[in-house]
Amino acid sequence: MNTLKLRHVAIDTHKENVAYLHRDCTVYRTEGFQALSKIEIHKAEDHTPIIAVLNVVDDDSITAPGQLGLCEQAFRQLGLEEGAALTVTHAKPPLSLKAVHRKIAGERLDFDDYLAISRDIVANRYSKIEMAAFLVACAETGMEREEVLYLTRSMIETGEKLEWGEPLVADKHCIGGIPGNRTTMLVVPIVAAHGMLIPKTSSRAITSPAGTADTMEVLAKVKLDMERLHDIVRKQRACLVWGGTAKLAPLDDILIAVERPLSLDSAGQMTASILSKKIAAGSTHLLIDIPVGPTAKVRSSLTAMRLRKLFEYVGDRLGLHLDVILTDGRQPIGRGIGPVLETRDVMQVLNNQPEAPADLREKSLQLAGRILEFDPDVRGGQGYVIARNILDSGRALEKMQAIIEAQGRNDQPPQLGHLRHKVLAPESGLVEEIDNLQMAHIARLAGAPLDKGAGVDLHKKTGDPVEAGEPLYTIYAEFPSDFQFTQEAARQASGYRIGVHK
Amino acid sequence: MNTLKLRHVAIDTHKENVAYLHRDCTVYRTEGFQALSKIEIHKAEDHTPIIAVLNVVDDDSITAPGQLGLCEQAFRQLGLEEGAALTVTHAKPPLSLKAVHRKIAGERLDFDDYLAISRDIVANRYSKIEMAAFLVACAETGMEREEVLYLTRSMIETGEKLEWGEPLVADKHCIGGIPGNRTTMLVVPIVAAHGMLIPKTSSRAITSPAGTADTMEVLAKVKLDMERLHDIVRKQRACLVWGGTAKLAPLDDILIAVERPLSLDSAGQMTASILSKKIAAGSTHLLIDIPVGPTAKVRSSLTAMRLRKLFEYVGDRLGLHLDVILTDGRQPIGRGIGPVLETRDVMQVLNNQPEAPADLREKSLQLAGRILEFDPDVRGGQGYVIARNILDSGRALEKMQAIIEAQGRNDQPPQLGHLRHKVLAPESGLVEEIDNLQMAHIARLAGAPLDKGAGVDLHKKTGDPVEAGEPLYTIYAEFPSDFQFTQEAARQASGYRIGVHK
Repeated sequence: MNTLKLRHVAIDTHKENVAYLHRDCTVYRTEGFQALSKIEIHKAEDHTPIIAVLNVVDDDSITAPGQLGLCEQAFRQLGLEEGAALTVTHAKPPLSLKAVHRKIAGERLDFDDYLAISRDIVANRYSKIEMAAFLVACAETGMEREEVLYLTRSMIETGEKLEWGEPLVADKHCIGGIPGNRTTMLVVPIVAAHGMLIPKTSSRAITSPAGTADTMEVLAKVKLDMERLHDIVRKQRACLVWGGTAKLAPLDDILIAVERPLSLDSAGQMTASILSKKIAAGSTHLLIDIPVGPTAKVRSSLTAMRLRKLFEYVGDRLGLHLDVILTDGRQPIGRGIGPVLETRDVMQVLNNQPEAPADLREKSLQLAGRILEFDPDVRGGQGYVIARNILDSGRALEKMQAIIEAQGRNDQPPQLGHLRHKVLAPESGLVEEIDNLQMAHIARLAGAPLDKGAGVDLHKKTGDPVEAGEPLYTIYAEFPSDFQFTQEAARQASGYRIGVHK
Repeated sequence: MNTLKLRHVAIDTHKENVAYLHRDCTVYRTEGFQALSKIEIHKAEDHTPIIAVLNVVDDDSITAPGQLGLCEQAFRQLGLEEGAALTVTHAKPPLSLKAVHRKIAGERLDFDDYLAISRDIVANRYSKIEMAAFLVACAETGMEREEVLYLTRSMIETGEKLEWGEPLVADKHCIGGIPGNRTTMLVVPIVAAHGMLIPKTSSRAITSPAGTADTMEVLAKVKLDMERLHDIVRKQRACLVWGGTAKLAPLDDILIAVERPLSLDSAGQMTASILSKKIAAGSTHLLIDIPVGPTAKVRSSLTAMRLRKLFEYVGDRLGLHLDVILTDGRQPIGRGIGPVLETRDVMQVLNNQPEAPADLREKSLQLAGRILEFDPDVRGGQGYVIARNILDSGRALEKMQAIIEAQGRNDQPPQLGHLRHKVLAPESGLVEEIDNLQMAHIARLAGAPLDKGAGVDLHKKTGDPVEAGEPLYTIYAEFPSDFQFTQEAARQASGYRIGVHK
């Protein structure tokens, strides 16, 4: 068999193994590979081969005949030096792909199927298009609740698991879709100030203008190693970090890399994604926030109830204490949308400033109250009052500052975007509706979450009276092209509906 | 806005536009792109931008900061010289992706949706994973028959169309799945010898061990330009060429590049794919062969009837004269499986050799007879006799030789693989079943269709008596690794079931 010399090709293909062979390479010609073929790369007989998708190269300086080029991720996975001798063969399709085909055909899969699929994906045996096929087949009404349980278990089993050594490890999660809804950064310090353990790992924004990790990063480092994380949690009873550094439910991260460009977000995948991450993170008690509203992710109480039942079904079977709360998702929460602006709102609430957004404060107290009631020593219905006392007394602020210091304060916090544009009310009346989707869209066009200072600051909320020509909100951006796009989008649809009263 | 200099990156990514930016490039850092982001590449304000998926590069020699690297296909699509000034922005998702999401959610799409999706895909605005999402959403029972019609029309409208200037342009198509079923190479010369116009464009094998184009290529050139093709058809009333050179229903070719690695083959996609190609190729009268058998693509008469109705529904609405025939698909047709072996079978039938496989001859005559009956001058039921006379008289062979000469005879025809292995009967009895799928699998493992001399030669067919130790078939291969794999696969499952009679 022809051997090839390993070549590192410094291309980052994002969660997909790509291999490069020169068109004139004997191995390429004789083995009958084609571009997009999947190949198996063998380093020694006794070693499990890695799998990669083939790209064909016509430039010796990238990969010459006789060489096998591997992208960053495949090169790392193989773990050899450049020049190492390799052989390649046609890859047999991963066995679990047969289960994906059964799923596409509308069949129900069992736990062994989901586990096999999960293992193959985590071992990089799936191409992006195979992952897309799996996700779409499972999307929407495609999964029964037992299957969601199987997928969740598979996600947990194919990753690592954190242990905190305590019987009550609290956590919260919002299914998202409501701009400005930064309650986590209030709930965590309140709950931790009470003494409850709440080691919070959050994600970055996927389709929204800001995730908790993006927002917390305005104030402090969020990318911490495990040792440091444990140390902080031991001392502070809490943390507010990005969860991506832990190898918790890695399948979820891989799938998200495909879900994101596809904007897929089905109930089954959402449930599996959320619960697997939480259980892998060592959580024992979890509050899930499902905002309901005409422009929220969940639009009707009926859908919300169904989703709640699905969370409860899977959570119960995995031994998780689960409380699901349906909240008002009819408009954005707070005023700011985008990391810097949302941080400002959070700090106003923690500081008990009079201009602090009341809805953000109120919702955070409700959520914190429900979590505090996980504590067997807290009487049912008393959580809210305890939470309010902690916030009003300044103990929540104190805890937040301690967490920020422990994680490493950001000494050069990002500033608000310097390009600013006020969107004005076209007529006088009452604000009747603010479209969550359009406000999120506008904030993302402005550059959030990657430009932390970009976003939207709402000056009016639902029910507020407004005069024609008065500003409804201000757009902040950093880059002229984003800024232009955003103004144009806001001109086409401001996201506000003003009711004119005669 | 920051401009970038165009750089040609000689990587063939197969039907997906990929762009390369250096990780230290200002544009990469400030615009907040991520790997797998889709970007729009603008050359001048008045020009429609092209869209590409981003890979991030850490090697100046591939793409340096300040440069924008484009893979082969994207570079060609842009059509500029290296060094040209470009700007890039975040790509808005193609508008038609919203329709794909509605399809995933189980909705029915209308013609405008399918046309918009088709146009976006043909303009390379979809990434591979977006195409996969579309295909999976449409797979299996996901499309209503009106939708199949819409997709078919969209495929035709987004490509070119051949015109032959005659009222009767005949064609045939088999839905595939039966190894060795090389009837086209017999039907075409018979029908053309009768004087009927049959300009046959065929595909290469996708998942089978040989397509007609692969097999015909053993004898003659099959990749011809349009002018040459028209010339041959004018003189010979027929051709047997690869259809890929014409820009007929290009959407189908793009989708196949994703369908193939996913092994997707749903009724709706199959119907749209076949009928769009035929209509775009200018066919007016089409015979479709649906083999039915336990290991065929279509396993029951009920499924075959449903598929027939779908073909008829779409064909009728597009003005195509369609005849659908259900044939015996319980075992491979002929003896050889793989291009060289199948060519041998075809030539034996054309030469009326006594050892010619009777089933291949008989089926070809039946199909040719049905096509001849498209001729208004042929009485119903007389087609078969006419076809047999043409074959027996040697006129079919004569026509075939003329076609081969016209297309350009292959002076160095590929030879049978030099590695040979006989698979023996484990016991005496009657051959009860030959598994189409396993035989196709074995022939592909041996190297077919890319190694034209690789494949399987069947010595026994269903109903034949066999003694223990007698050869059932011979495997031919060119490369030792393929050869080993193939023997191993045949050891695990020979594909034959022998009935032992007491």
